Amino acid sequence: MMRLQTPDLQLLKQANNLEMSFSGTGVNVVSALTNFGHHGFLVSKLPLNAVGEAAKSYLQKLGIQTQYVVRGGDYLGIYFLEKGFGARPSRVTYTNRLDSSFNKGRMEDYDVENIIKEIDLIHFCGITLAMNEQVREQVILLATAVKQAGGKVIFDCNYRASLWGENGYKKAKNYYEKMLSLADLVMMNERDAFSILGMETIHSERKDQLCELIPKVAALYDIELIAGTHREIHGDNSHSLTGFMYLEQSMTFSKTLTFAVHDRIGSGDAFTSGIIHGYYKGFSPDKTVAFATTAGMIAHSIVGDTPMSSEYDIFQIMSESVGDVER
Amino acid sequence: MMRLQTPDLQLLKQANNLEMSFSGTGVNVVSALTNFGHHGFLVSKLPLNAVGEAAKSYLQKLGIQTQYVVRGGDYLGIYFLEKGFGARPSRVTYTNRLDSSFNKGRMEDYDVENIIKEIDLIHFCGITLAMNEQVREQVILLATAVKQAGGKVIFDCNYRASLWGENGYKKAKNYYEKMLSLADLVMMNERDAFSILGMETIHSERKDQLCELIPKVAALYDIELIAGTHREIHGDNSHSLTGFMYLEQSMTFSKTLTFAVHDRIGSGDAFTSGIIHGYYKGFSPDKTVAFATTAGMIAHSIVGDTPMSSEYDIFQIMSESVGDVER
Amino acid sequence: MMRLQTPDLQLLKQANNLEMSFSGTGVNVVSALTNFGHHGFLVSKLPLNAVGEAAKSYLQKLGIQTQYVVRGGDYLGIYFLEKGFGARPSRVTYTNRLDSSFNKGRMEDYDVENIIKEIDLIHFCGITLAMNEQVREQVILLATAVKQAGGKVIFDCNYRASLWGENGYKKAKNYYEKMLSLADLVMMNERDAFSILGMETIHSERKDQLCELIPKVAALYDIELIAGTHREIHGDNSHSLTGFMYLEQSMTFSKTLTFAVHDRIGSGDAFTSGIIHGYYKGFSPDKTVAFATTAGMIAHSIVGDTPMSSEYDIFQIMSESVGDVER
Amino acid sequence: MMRLQTPDLQLLKQANNLEMSFSGTGVNVVSALTNFGHHGFLVSKLPLNAVGEAAKSYLQKLGIQTQYVVRGGDYLGIYFLEKGFGARPSRVTYTNRLDSSFNKGRMEDYDVENIIKEIDLIHFCGITLAMNEQVREQVILLATAVKQAGGKVIFDCNYRASLWGENGYKKAKNYYEKMLSLADLVMMNERDAFSILGMETIHSERKDQLCELIPKVAALYDIELIAGTHREIHGDNSHSLTGFMYLEQSMTFSKTLTFAVHDRIGSGDAFTSGIIHGYYKGFSPDKTVAFATTAGMIAHSIVGDTPMSSEYDIFQIMSESVGDVER
Amino acid sequence: MMRLQTPDLQLLKQANNLEMSFSGTGVNVVSALTNFGHHGFLVSKLPLNAVGEAAKSYLQKLGIQTQYVVRGGDYLGIYFLEKGFGARPSRVTYTNRLDSSFNKGRMEDYDVENIIKEIDLIHFCGITLAMNEQVREQVILLATAVKQAGGKVIFDCNYRASLWGENGYKKAKNYYEKMLSLADLVMMNERDAFSILGMETIHSERKDQLCELIPKVAALYDIELIAGTHREIHGDNSHSLTGFMYLEQSMTFSKTLTFAVHDRIGSGDAFTSGIIHGYYKGFSPDKTVAFATTAGMIAHSIVGDTPMSSEYDIFQIMSESVGDVER
Amino acid sequence: MMRLQTPDLQLLKQANNLEMSFSGTGVNVVSALTNFGHHGFLVSKLPLNAVGEAAKSYLQKLGIQTQYVVRGGDYLGIYFLEKGFGARPSRVTYTNRLDSSFNKGRMEDYDVENIIKEIDLIHFCGITLAMNEQVREQVILLATAVKQAGGKVIFDCNYRASLWGENGYKKAKNYYEKMLSLADLVMMNERDAFSILGMETIHSERKDQLCELIPKVAALYDIELIAGTHREIHGDNSHSLTGFMYLEQSMTFSKTLTFAVHDRIGSGDAFTSGIIHGYYKGFSPDKTVAFATTAGMIAHSIVGDTPMSSEYDIFQIMSESVGDVER
Repeated sequence: MMRLQTPDLQLLKQANNLEMSFSGTGVNVVSALTNFGHHGFLVSKLPLNAVGEAAKSYLQKLGIQTQYVVRGGDYLGIYFLEKGFGARPSRVTYTNRLDSSFNKGRMEDYDVENIIKEIDLIHFCGITLAMNEQVREQVILLATAVKQAGGKVIFDCNYRASLWGENGYKKAKNYYEKMLSLADLVMMNERDAFSILGMETIHSERKDQLCELIPKVAALYDIELIAGTHREIHGDNSHSLTGFMYLEQSMTFSKTLTFAVHDRIGSGDAFTSGIIHGYYKGFSPDKTVAFATTAGMIAHSIVGDTPMSSEYDIFQIMSESVGDVER
Repeated sequence: MMRLQTPDLQLLKQANNLEMSFSGTGVNVVSALTNFGHHGFLVSKLPLNAVGEAAKSYLQKLGIQTQYVVRGGDYLGIYFLEKGFGARPSRVTYTNRLDSSFNKGRMEDYDVENIIKEIDLIHFCGITLAMNEQVREQVILLATAVKQAGGKVIFDCNYRASLWGENGYKKAKNYYEKMLSLADLVMMNERDAFSILGMETIHSERKDQLCELIPKVAALYDIELIAGTHREIHGDNSHSLTGFMYLEQSMTFSKTLTFAVHDRIGSGDAFTSGIIHGYYKGFSPDKTVAFATTAGMIAHSIVGDTPMSSEYDIFQIMSESVGDVER
Repeated sequence: MMRLQTPDLQLLKQANNLEMSFSGTGVNVVSALTNFGHHGFLVSKLPLNAVGEAAKSYLQKLGIQTQYVVRGGDYLGIYFLEKGFGARPSRVTYTNRLDSSFNKGRMEDYDVENIIKEIDLIHFCGITLAMNEQVREQVILLATAVKQAGGKVIFDCNYRASLWGENGYKKAKNYYEKMLSLADLVMMNERDAFSILGMETIHSERKDQLCELIPKVAALYDIELIAGTHREIHGDNSHSLTGFMYLEQSMTFSKTLTFAVHDRIGSGDAFTSGIIHGYYKGFSPDKTVAFATTAGMIAHSIVGDTPMSSEYDIFQIMSESVGDVER
Repeated sequence: MMRLQTPDLQLLKQANNLEMSFSGTGVNVVSALTNFGHHGFLVSKLPLNAVGEAAKSYLQKLGIQTQYVVRGGDYLGIYFLEKGFGARPSRVTYTNRLDSSFNKGRMEDYDVENIIKEIDLIHFCGITLAMNEQVREQVILLATAVKQAGGKVIFDCNYRASLWGENGYKKAKNYYEKMLSLADLVMMNERDAFSILGMETIHSERKDQLCELIPKVAALYDIELIAGTHREIHGDNSHSLTGFMYLEQSMTFSKTLTFAVHDRIGSGDAFTSGIIHGYYKGFSPDKTVAFATTAGMIAHSIVGDTPMSSEYDIFQIMSESVGDVER
Repeated sequence: MMRLQTPDLQLLKQANNLEMSFSGTGVNVVSALTNFGHHGFLVSKLPLNAVGEAAKSYLQKLGIQTQYVVRGGDYLGIYFLEKGFGARPSRVTYTNRLDSSFNKGRMEDYDVENIIKEIDLIHFCGITLAMNEQVREQVILLATAVKQAGGKVIFDCNYRASLWGENGYKKAKNYYEKMLSLADLVMMNERDAFSILGMETIHSERKDQLCELIPKVAALYDIELIAGTHREIHGDNSHSLTGFMYLEQSMTFSKTLTFAVHDRIGSGDAFTSGIIHGYYKGFSPDKTVAFATTAGMIAHSIVGDTPMSSEYDIFQIMSESVGDVER
Repeated sequence: MMRLQTPDLQLLKQANNLEMSFSGTGVNVVSALTNFGHHGFLVSKLPLNAVGEAAKSYLQKLGIQTQYVVRGGDYLGIYFLEKGFGARPSRVTYTNRLDSSFNKGRMEDYDVENIIKEIDLIHFCGITLAMNEQVREQVILLATAVKQAGGKVIFDCNYRASLWGENGYKKAKNYYEKMLSLADLVMMNERDAFSILGMETIHSERKDQLCELIPKVAALYDIELIAGTHREIHGDNSHSLTGFMYLEQSMTFSKTLTFAVHDRIGSGDAFTSGIIHGYYKGFSPDKTVAFATTAGMIAHSIVGDTPMSSEYDIFQIMSESVGDVER
């Protein structure tokens, strides 16, 4: 999607210029993994006009391979971002993306044969499921194809209420269950278990709920790894983040990190990329979840949606206390 | 519509910031007339979100009264503008506006009763006719209502081929004829007579064609005044403009003005506003067409789509040769 | 006034660009009320040149009706703002506004007859009293006329020491007393009671002083409602704000809100607009003072002097704890 | 003065940012001479606040020595510049400078004793004469003192009609005559001779008028050197400039240079500085007037009021035809 | 190299911000060919730090494959660009690039084995020959290896006097002769034949000299194709360009194109890319040289060094007269 | 050096514009002292090109006298700054400065005779010692000359590990000892005593180590005054600073100040300038160290490397608690 952000904390009605970038959960995760040294592709469809050209250049700049980005159709989804400050929350306004090239794309547009040959892991995001029936079908077909070809499937629940509309949870449940059944790695927390899957808990503390429900989800859908975060938002432009990962029937938590927030969007994707990297590299659970949570933390200090840090940067910050100028 | 322009002659794929403004033929004409001291309203529909809020603030800034701008629906049309230079033409890329608040608006949304009471003249643009059947119907209903209430109807042909698609002229003809029948003042030139109305001419020179066809159009549809321009584009970022006006069976031409071009979009609307102003104020035909053509010329030196000059500014430039600093 | 702000925390001697906006207590209060759905006018005088044109466009953008803004004279007051950070306070430098169009305006310039017919409430600011004798006279005449016509008069003490010069309190007292006698709603706190009105107190705590003096002021000048805030400034770019309102012989305090500060100027006007809105809408005292204090708080997160929030925005933040992205 | 310019050809009512610089005829001439290797001082008065601080830093940046710039008073003159394009002329809007630090400065403020000791040439501008009686007196006193101390006096007529108001020529004549009597070098052309000095001519061609009147002026007021330019303004953002110089009873003209114009303000001061430099260095009349006219031409390609070119830059362009990239 | 350009025609001493991009003859040619649909690689070395990271992202954005860009060493060459206007030429100031990663790179750094396998054509630029002995050796080794592996070698003479210093032509001759012997396609004109190769001509007209010398060069060094341009620079920010190509013993000229110039740097590389594209695609000589010259012309209307046009864009402009807005 | 900073917390690979300024320890200290009313010179060498011109203009803007800044050579050191946020540290990337004009300057370039006559105090920075043998020799020669002429020598240890490379402390020790022997005032803390001078301590607390080692250093090298700071870095973009000064065998500490940080670079130089100013003016030790630490604190709220506060500004903040808007 194209992100159009007002500069310097302005509201849209105050702004005369907008900062243009391109992002999305898939873009963010793939680009973050590219920064860790992986070879990352995007599977998508962009319009064959100046907007599509701009998006493609931007993806290339992020280090993403674009041979599976097909071109055609007319539109690209756009969202406007007014960054919050203190007590004023950030606000996102979407334009019409129902007729975007991606949403109107057809299965035949994509070179599935080569995609499944070339990749080891594929990442899907729950937002995509909210688009339309055709896209949902494509997602499930592609996930199935990758799985059959021996690849791993990653699924980030990322339920976005405003996109599903009324009775959203009910509409979404079936598709989420399909994706969970196909997925090897899942990004979610206990709230997804309640609201999407309709699970129940006797606990009232979030952590207890999490420790009860996540193992159940893993067992029910035969998921190898489930990870996610708990976030606390403070009044002074700072947040706290605690990462968790459930792997081989054992739950691991990171330290709770508290930090000043510059740009919150995309930090969840940074966490996801950290989990995938740790999993792929065979880091210990402790190291994986610490790495991922630190990746999430740093993403809050980076301008824009897309994480920008290398493995070196993250280890550096994990090993240090708060840093001064590096010169 | 929202105009998102790349700064400093960049292509969209080079840009990181976009300059946001709001415009459209209606906006431009009404705002230009406001600068001439008239009281101008816009009849439209804007989404009830941050984008609509920004658009409304912008219209207010331009001096447009917004009480007949209703709020509702979800989207606003957007276009991207890459300004040309020398041999490289300007390029416009549209986003999806089929589902814009305006295009999905219904007749009941608008306070027709008060609109027709309050206004003397109403201006319609041919671009609107290209939207959808519902909008076309609204346009014709509103024009009819204004006419019946004793107001004057202005219609700017403004045929935009890319919006009508294949066989566009054929599709458009019927609606254009209806609007021409309702209109008192019309903005067009001989090309509209050929291509939309299917008229023929034995002449090969543009001026001869014009002088043959425009009186025929005026007679056929009982139009009080027809005006328009002939434009020549030179290689050195300069254009020439010749205005004409057909009124009371007599054709009047302006001098041909040649000038450097900074922002070409909206200059036709500046011409239109000059014609309306001259007509309304009872200027002589010579003065009206000179005023309108000068208004059109100055608009090429103004940043953005919307004309910004006062009556004083235009008379000042009409009366002078090229000017130095005014201090 | 024109506000010229250095960008990005620069000092004026470091700056090469200035951000231009237009504001003032009256502008801020009227615009804020417009955002709450009221119909707001400004009564002022702007120069008949490009600067006045720019100011008028800006007021329109803010949603302010400008039919009572007359044009004439030569100048507009300007101030330069260097925003502070941490231990460094913000700094304001004024240009000469003694000969501004407003300060040299005459009573006859204003369409008093229609103004008093059209408005329900009129707001005056103590800063205006500091201008010159002529302006002071106009203020008192207009307040008297509105009162006689059955409108409510709001007066914000807003004593600005640098404008009154030496022995300022003494010079100002008489005028303040006149305005207090005319006013129905007054914005002030106990410090105004000491310093301008010369009242005394036996208490040493601010809150005690307030609770002693404000009722006395209300009784003495027959004021229906007095409201104001106590502000605490912390070292980490955060402030605390406690609102109070004295109405029907009862004092109501808001919770003390603590929040990060982005742009402090205009927050008092946001509070004022909240009080007026609550009063006008008949909110309970508790709700009014909470609404106003929240309006004041949010204004610290908004770029520029002028409050930008709707009633919905403020209720949203009152009802929530600190918020994440709204998408 | 502070120059506040709208960016990118915007009108003031379209602008949100202004580009701040500081200039004035004196600033421009002294800075230009500094670029030619001279040691240049400004004699002026700046307010003792952030605005004065910013102005002083800016003068220093231009290479001007500031030890004779005294500090005090409250204000600095400001002007807004909207750059023209094509047929739209540039527009300047002044703020109130009657009460500026300089205009309210007194003779005692300036360290005349040291000024006259240290300088060889002093430059005065006719704009200064338009300020007020006190300033006029100071100018004449200082010019007299410098002359008595053996320095040369340069006077640039620079009559600005809008500052002298009605019957301006009549009001100005006496002061101009005094300055002409004191001056060794004068910048003017035949129009100043007509309108200020009331001279008459039988010729109708500008060049003939010039050749008749300038020698008369030189004889009448005993002026060593008179120089100036004739400017022609074309429609395509280009101007033509012809320089002349009358020295030792002989008139010398430069070639007529035609060139694209980016920023016209300050180009006259560049010409002046070229004449002073040639005179001081003992260039031949031909070389002096060619150097000065080229300096004037290049100034049109430089951003801002103040000339920026070195002697080397100017000789380089004199010796070449139009240039490509220098790398 | 990193290009740091002052904005808006400022001189470096006026600028506070610089626009950063990355370019170079190789970058420009490869990126231009990528826009024509080719798969293009860069062979270079970038520092392993934030500057190298930024350069790599930028190359990716331009569509260049970076697998043969090795990382190491400490520096990257930088140049400052002050764009000229009218009579003022553009000015380039270099920083020290003697110790850049590329200049200190060693043959072993590059994966020659795979490079020669993967590519069909390789492009070298004469600027590279001016660096140091080690780089010259690498260039010749790589050209030889590609030629032996069956690839075509392209050589652009691009003699830069300031880099070769005193007696530059003499120093350069030997290396140029080696490259010409290895090259299949050469970019040069008759001036290179005189000054570098020391050839002589009896003609005085440039075109005659060209037609005499270029066939001699082609014969002497056994070059398949030689192409280049003649450029004329006019005073009004416009240039004229005439392309030529010598292929199969026949010389073909393009029409002379005259056009307004926005950014001249990189236009030669656009011409080169057009020749390579025409050659590779088997266009007729007429079409090739017209395509290349048009590509060169459009590059003058594009911001930055690097050509941005697609094959479609260029054909569009070849087929049209000067264009209006495309919408 | 030229500082090129990415705007708005961007990484270099995200940036398209860089903010250019010029700074360095010497520049910062001299400019800060100029703000306190002293007359300050820089002794350095700048290239004779556009970059040197820009640097010179910038120094002049900062109020620095440039008559001892000689011109010649080709290059100026450049560094890129990516400002940190929260947990992400700031990052500095240097370009090649080995061949900078300053580093290749020779003793004969500088007008030592006049320098030592004109100055009372001279300041040297340890960074300079890291450059090359020639520069080290020049530094020691100049310090010796100033000392012999009766001036005071100030030395700021400022050991920069990345510049000295491997075994840096060992390489540096000899030069540091020479400078310490020549210095009257020294900026350092206990860490310099350990690592450069190889001293040992039995204490484990920083403050105890300081109180043990600094007096020893003062005694050993016969230093009149030693001052420095202890800094603590917190996670929320705030730092704490405690200044100390050892003078006449007595150690004085400031209060520990805690404050929000906007731009950390140059704050040490602000502290240094405060110590020099207090020493020069004869402030009491308490006042000097409070003044210097406050100067250091405010520098964190100032954009750019170079301190900008006047003596008045600093006393104002010392005397107040955290401030509101000054208007």
